[in-house]
Amino acid sequence: MVILGKTMGIKKPFTEVIRANIGDAQAMGQQPITFLRQVMALCTYPNLLDSPSFPEDAKKRARRILQACGGNSLGSYSASQGVNCIREDVAAYITRRDGGVPADPDNIYLTTGASDGISTILKILVSGGGKSRTGVLIPIPQYPLYSAVISELDAVQVNYYLDEENCWALNVNELRRAVREAKEHCDPKVLCIINPGNPTGQVQSRKCIEDVIHFAWEEKLFLLADEVYQDNVYSPGCRFHSFKKVLHEMGPEYSSNVELASFHSTSKGYMGECGYRGGYMEVINLHPEIKGQLVKLLSVRLCPPVSGQAAMDIVVNPPVPGEESFEQFRREKESVLGDLAKKAKLTEDLFNQVPGVQCNPLQGAMYAFPRIFLPARAVEAAQAHTMAPDMFYCMKLLEETGICVVPGSGFGQREGTYHFRMTILPPVEKLRTVLQKVKEFHIKFLEKYA
Amino acid sequence: MVILGKTMGIKKPFTEVIRANIGDAQAMGQQPITFLRQVMALCTYPNLLDSPSFPEDAKKRARRILQACGGNSLGSYSASQGVNCIREDVAAYITRRDGGVPADPDNIYLTTGASDGISTILKILVSGGGKSRTGVLIPIPQYPLYSAVISELDAVQVNYYLDEENCWALNVNELRRAVREAKEHCDPKVLCIINPGNPTGQVQSRKCIEDVIHFAWEEKLFLLADEVYQDNVYSPGCRFHSFKKVLHEMGPEYSSNVELASFHSTSKGYMGECGYRGGYMEVINLHPEIKGQLVKLLSVRLCPPVSGQAAMDIVVNPPVPGEESFEQFRREKESVLGDLAKKAKLTEDLFNQVPGVQCNPLQGAMYAFPRIFLPARAVEAAQAHTMAPDMFYCMKLLEETGICVVPGSGFGQREGTYHFRMTILPPVEKLRTVLQKVKEFHIKFLEKYA
Repeated sequence: MVILGKTMGIKKPFTEVIRANIGDAQAMGQQPITFLRQVMALCTYPNLLDSPSFPEDAKKRARRILQACGGNSLGSYSASQGVNCIREDVAAYITRRDGGVPADPDNIYLTTGASDGISTILKILVSGGGKSRTGVLIPIPQYPLYSAVISELDAVQVNYYLDEENCWALNVNELRRAVREAKEHCDPKVLCIINPGNPTGQVQSRKCIEDVIHFAWEEKLFLLADEVYQDNVYSPGCRFHSFKKVLHEMGPEYSSNVELASFHSTSKGYMGECGYRGGYMEVINLHPEIKGQLVKLLSVRLCPPVSGQAAMDIVVNPPVPGEESFEQFRREKESVLGDLAKKAKLTEDLFNQVPGVQCNPLQGAMYAFPRIFLPARAVEAAQAHTMAPDMFYCMKLLEETGICVVPGSGFGQREGTYHFRMTILPPVEKLRTVLQKVKEFHIKFLEKYA
Repeated sequence: MVILGKTMGIKKPFTEVIRANIGDAQAMGQQPITFLRQVMALCTYPNLLDSPSFPEDAKKRARRILQACGGNSLGSYSASQGVNCIREDVAAYITRRDGGVPADPDNIYLTTGASDGISTILKILVSGGGKSRTGVLIPIPQYPLYSAVISELDAVQVNYYLDEENCWALNVNELRRAVREAKEHCDPKVLCIINPGNPTGQVQSRKCIEDVIHFAWEEKLFLLADEVYQDNVYSPGCRFHSFKKVLHEMGPEYSSNVELASFHSTSKGYMGECGYRGGYMEVINLHPEIKGQLVKLLSVRLCPPVSGQAAMDIVVNPPVPGEESFEQFRREKESVLGDLAKKAKLTEDLFNQVPGVQCNPLQGAMYAFPRIFLPARAVEAAQAHTMAPDMFYCMKLLEETGICVVPGSGFGQREGTYHFRMTILPPVEKLRTVLQKVKEFHIKFLEKYA
């Protein structure tokens, strides 16, 4: 909003601000999944259970959720860990997703969006005490929740760099370097992974995940797998592999020892229900004492929003073939994911046609993170404004086109490189226009500072 | 749940566990306010806006909320501080409540229940730095959120004792003593007040609030007023006075200088919508730099649940005379509050008929916090079980009657005194039975350990 403020009162060369800066699908016009909202409405106002305009399968889900709530109402507190039957549904979902690898409802914690889970578990892990400060490994570029929470907790942020030349892959040698150097001044205990990547959009190969798990096992690192984009995989040849599944398949030496927390959310995927703040974490091999602390910490805040828990239930327990709502659900889901795949390709192709812009394939998630090569004079002009060069670029882009994107410096990047993050959430035709405008802006920018 | 576990598998002398331990109205059978749920259902599933079974005033509210949401959907993120029009409605509510004392929407922050607001503001105030640790004054008995957050933040808990002999009144001389002693080992910076009291149920007089504000002004303490029970005042002669209003009426020397955060919630009052995790805080005279930190901290967690924000909107913007839903709303509201008032009196009267039990009037909130006089042999028996004596008492009560209450030691109490907290949320006739059972249990307990 500060950025927007700068342009207020001045006649603008655009008619509309396009907020391509945040992964907020419904704000960009994506329609909610009908079935999810039907169940939510039934839970909210149970009189509707008598209405013929709601399908039976939605009513069945709503009755089941309400029966598990105190006083059969979304208005009661749930257990701090979340409503029992919803945790069971999450566990069943994980088991299905991972081809039968079992999940225990007791290891599932419902959260206020994934952010809440991530910051809660980091708080527990960092507060462990010890002589030196706790080091937390995070990818660079990263989603800034991590750096913010690490700083809040007075832990040490340990950067490992993703390999831009290699489609933002995670290289275990780079992890090794980061840990080795970190050990000189802190105690590296946690390794955060974002897969599919935010802001970088890469999807990790099974081999890479194995390597990471082996490394975590060697170094006794707690693995924190941010898997909120697990439904958002577009590139042919890419598939989502959960850390949990790979861990299990690597055998008991790994699966009984490596500590892992993984996160999911109602906010991303094909449902984009950000506002409900629903999420879960699955935590395995957690030391019983730490688990006790976790439960205590969670209980202070009473419970996550029960409406968000209900939304999470529908995400993990959607209509299945044979149910009345299945066809419509399938159509809606495929339409959202199909469009995202189309837009991922379109964005990559169009960015790579712009001179001075290099964009890796958007294998997953919902962002492009192109590298922009800025002329020396533009860098000087930014410095004259005491701005990071990519911040300067993004400000100019906003002022001249109304397109709002986030400078790479907000996520971290190798020194001397510049990027921005743009969502691919605008509808296809609008996105095409946006990309065309960015292209024109970029060419003019290069000319101006040549 | 640990407590309940102890009784599992053993044949129990009761047929039902009565959870009188937590202020969870709907779990005890209270029905949601129809209007609130209608608006929420309309917001959740906007197709219902065409349904003739919903009243126009509910539709009007729903349309207004949706228009203020990104993509007209509860599924979008809101601004971190909350949806604009809801913050405006909160400000208008406060202005009405306080007889015209103005409230600025810019000072309103929507939160994930009041707990979130309280812990967030404490985090900001404690992280201020300085040589000695920050002291936070809290009443004893207190709601344990405070002690938990203070301990999490590694701040110093500074106890001031409420005056049980004087209906749990807050005595400024006791505040003075607490601050004087605290200054020897920490830097007291924050004064927390719970009014109406939890677990103690007292309603502070206007005079008392003035004295507290004057004291905070003298000592430059940040005032933190937990006013979530502002609608729950029962005793004739008692009235809720907001700290904000009294502060304003004390004149500019106070109203421009004393820093105050006050909290409200959807969870208590007559609506009891705990599960939605809605709440707000109003923060005045906050130092701009601290305000900047607050906004930054809030933005890390993206936003409070938008459904909870919508619920908060209905709490502050209910039907008014002349609107279609007003009569039903008024009836439902008065029925809940009327029953609570009846139950408050009933509970006080019945407890005071029991030998060895002393119960102050339940002027407000939704709890009784009777003092129980335990025989020396009961105290010894508890010690033999390495339990606090009131914990021992509550365990026995649960095992023998199925009634679940919370020992006073969970809230803090003067040494050598024992209490428990019991909600008055069960329906009137059920509450009467519960009280009768507690009486019989207590008499038997006294006999056993005489």
